[in-house]
Amino acid sequence: MGEPRRGGMSRRVFLAGAGVASSSVALAACSREGEGFSEVASLTTATLAFDGERQAGIATPTQANLNLVGFNLKDGVTADGIRNLMQLWTEDARELAAGRNPLSSLEPEMVERPANLTITCGFGERVFDIAASGAKPQWLHDIPDMPREQLSDDWAQTDLVLQICSDDAVVCAWAMRHMTRAGMDYVRTAWVQQGFMNAYGSIPEGHTPRNLFGQVDGTVNPRSDDEFADQVFTDDGSSSLVVRRIAMDLDDWERLDRTSREEAVGRRLSDGAPLTGDNEFDAPDLDARDEYGLPVIDMNSHMARAMPPADHPGQKFLRRPYNYNLPPEPGSEQLSNAGLVFLAYQKDPDVQFTPVLRRLLEADRLNEWTTHIGSAVYWIPPGTADPGSGEARDAFWGETVLSRGRG
Amino acid sequence: MGEPRRGGMSRRVFLAGAGVASSSVALAACSREGEGFSEVASLTTATLAFDGERQAGIATPTQANLNLVGFNLKDGVTADGIRNLMQLWTEDARELAAGRNPLSSLEPEMVERPANLTITCGFGERVFDIAASGAKPQWLHDIPDMPREQLSDDWAQTDLVLQICSDDAVVCAWAMRHMTRAGMDYVRTAWVQQGFMNAYGSIPEGHTPRNLFGQVDGTVNPRSDDEFADQVFTDDGSSSLVVRRIAMDLDDWERLDRTSREEAVGRRLSDGAPLTGDNEFDAPDLDARDEYGLPVIDMNSHMARAMPPADHPGQKFLRRPYNYNLPPEPGSEQLSNAGLVFLAYQKDPDVQFTPVLRRLLEADRLNEWTTHIGSAVYWIPPGTADPGSGEARDAFWGETVLSRGRG
Repeated sequence: MGEPRRGGMSRRVFLAGAGVASSSVALAACSREGEGFSEVASLTTATLAFDGERQAGIATPTQANLNLVGFNLKDGVTADGIRNLMQLWTEDARELAAGRNPLSSLEPEMVERPANLTITCGFGERVFDIAASGAKPQWLHDIPDMPREQLSDDWAQTDLVLQICSDDAVVCAWAMRHMTRAGMDYVRTAWVQQGFMNAYGSIPEGHTPRNLFGQVDGTVNPRSDDEFADQVFTDDGSSSLVVRRIAMDLDDWERLDRTSREEAVGRRLSDGAPLTGDNEFDAPDLDARDEYGLPVIDMNSHMARAMPPADHPGQKFLRRPYNYNLPPEPGSEQLSNAGLVFLAYQKDPDVQFTPVLRRLLEADRLNEWTTHIGSAVYWIPPGTADPGSGEARDAFWGETVLSRGRG
Repeated sequence: MGEPRRGGMSRRVFLAGAGVASSSVALAACSREGEGFSEVASLTTATLAFDGERQAGIATPTQANLNLVGFNLKDGVTADGIRNLMQLWTEDARELAAGRNPLSSLEPEMVERPANLTITCGFGERVFDIAASGAKPQWLHDIPDMPREQLSDDWAQTDLVLQICSDDAVVCAWAMRHMTRAGMDYVRTAWVQQGFMNAYGSIPEGHTPRNLFGQVDGTVNPRSDDEFADQVFTDDGSSSLVVRRIAMDLDDWERLDRTSREEAVGRRLSDGAPLTGDNEFDAPDLDARDEYGLPVIDMNSHMARAMPPADHPGQKFLRRPYNYNLPPEPGSEQLSNAGLVFLAYQKDPDVQFTPVLRRLLEADRLNEWTTHIGSAVYWIPPGTADPGSGEARDAFWGETVLSRGRG
């Protein structure tokens, strides 16, 4: 949950503002005001650059489809095996992102139009234990136990994760199959968390997407280069990913009137403005009182609990949430089985993420309708360089730390 | 499976060719050749007309997302209850498709941009038994037992079905929630079959989408008004829907070389051309022999088995298939759990669909990699007219037959 911001910008503005490289995003120059046409590249040709200082799929715009795959190493896989896997996975992900056919794949037609495909890799703690123990970040451990959480083994920590996103669901499915098949000598799938956001081009410029509670879900995210450097990426281009699977009780939530929903969140449903403000991006005034002297924004509203306190302004991170909406569990009286695959990127979860999570799970009013059922933490290796480029970057995911582990 | 055709046309050509009404599909006139821009309406404003001679969601272009929901009537629901349900469901579906907030819904923001939302309703046999026995079509019964099928109760016949499709997954999820909630006094969800196709605008004009076997899946569908009138819709605008859930063993399929895959299908993988032809839409020549005197197209290839025989040219129907690609079943050694939610629309399944299905399940070479695991048949009521329009059409789904049932 939380208070993301990036959705508040158009993809175009975001791409320009964050300085994200895109190899073939061409922008239509012919949008016509008042007719609802937005300036986005055609999905038939849209791609996002794979190689770079940072992995794609983090600061790049959120695509419509997510296949988040948790993998565990097969018994007996050593440091050499992990290096081999990273080499072949990186090569194949680079080809798929560019719309080229990976080596030995017999399905070139399935990869021709990547539709902004990104494949982002993360390492769980066990990869460091096996292959790079000296390089393990001190924050790479389970999120501490939290009040109210009901974690399931079904969504537990894994050794590796691939975040596969595309604006085309067929591409997203195919890329998952290819990567799973390519890695099958080394890993087996522990879980797949599938999610969706609004379709490419379906949200007008300046509008923030909404989650299934109807809340705008993208207000306070980093957007400038400086904010990303401050909150999300270390100087070497690495990062961390926390995955929280959050079940949402839509049946109960929908029994609330709109005023109660807004009080629980601290923002207006209509436009996401804080209850003390006029516009989505207005700074909330937690000291404001109404005519009866009561706080306008409940101190236990989701927004108030999520805000970094004045003495800890660094408690900020990138939210990249996806919705899930599955059929009701057999025998359940619920109308659906819905929630968020909540992806948080930051430099250091211990400092930036976990304190916010604890504040929320202790007293966030939204807790009445949400339950955390999965948790995992990964180190995100820096971006790569195409081997032919001559740049001084890793040629494959984690090359530097994995080398160190073998020494 | 089968040999659909509609994907071979652009949405634009299709809309024009089939004469499908669309209340606000505006087409960008500024596409620029060679830059990959296609002439599609912005998803921020795209809608498909709800009311019409025929229900939307059949001849209209296939959207990216499917939520197919099978409902069973709650105990004690009578003919009057079914009429009430149809009235409120029709009203709400009409509002949702237009981007308006249904009566009593507290979430107007979730429905503002329908992204070509269609909600299509079908009646199972039991609705007629309860509310309209005299009107039951003679073909409205289970598909007869077929060789090789392994039908699961999980995907069995239901009393009602809603086919909910949108090019935006959030809209598709929301519309399912709304319709399920709206009907909860009368029905409970038996199953949800979720599926996906390529994203809106992701397939260039003239290209046919592919399923997860890599086959082009849209070659022989009806496309002209005459073909739709001949194959799909009766004069009163009604139709029938057969749902077959078809599991696809991708792991085994992917072990085949391309030549073997092409022989099993009867078409080239690269462009969908029959093995005797040069282009996707060339007529196959089943009599052609190669240099050794062997048939170029295997008589048991999928295409050859699916083709209507010369003495039964009416064995044609509309394929509207969606892919599914779920995580592997727990404990399975398979890399995924994938297949098709295969939706077939025709006037009369007994005459047009079932003979083709039988030919396929008896000897189609693709049977080695496919298993039919679900089956259901529905009557599709004619289209509706907005109550204010004064047109002589049903104001709600099935009004005419349900009235008759009460008489």
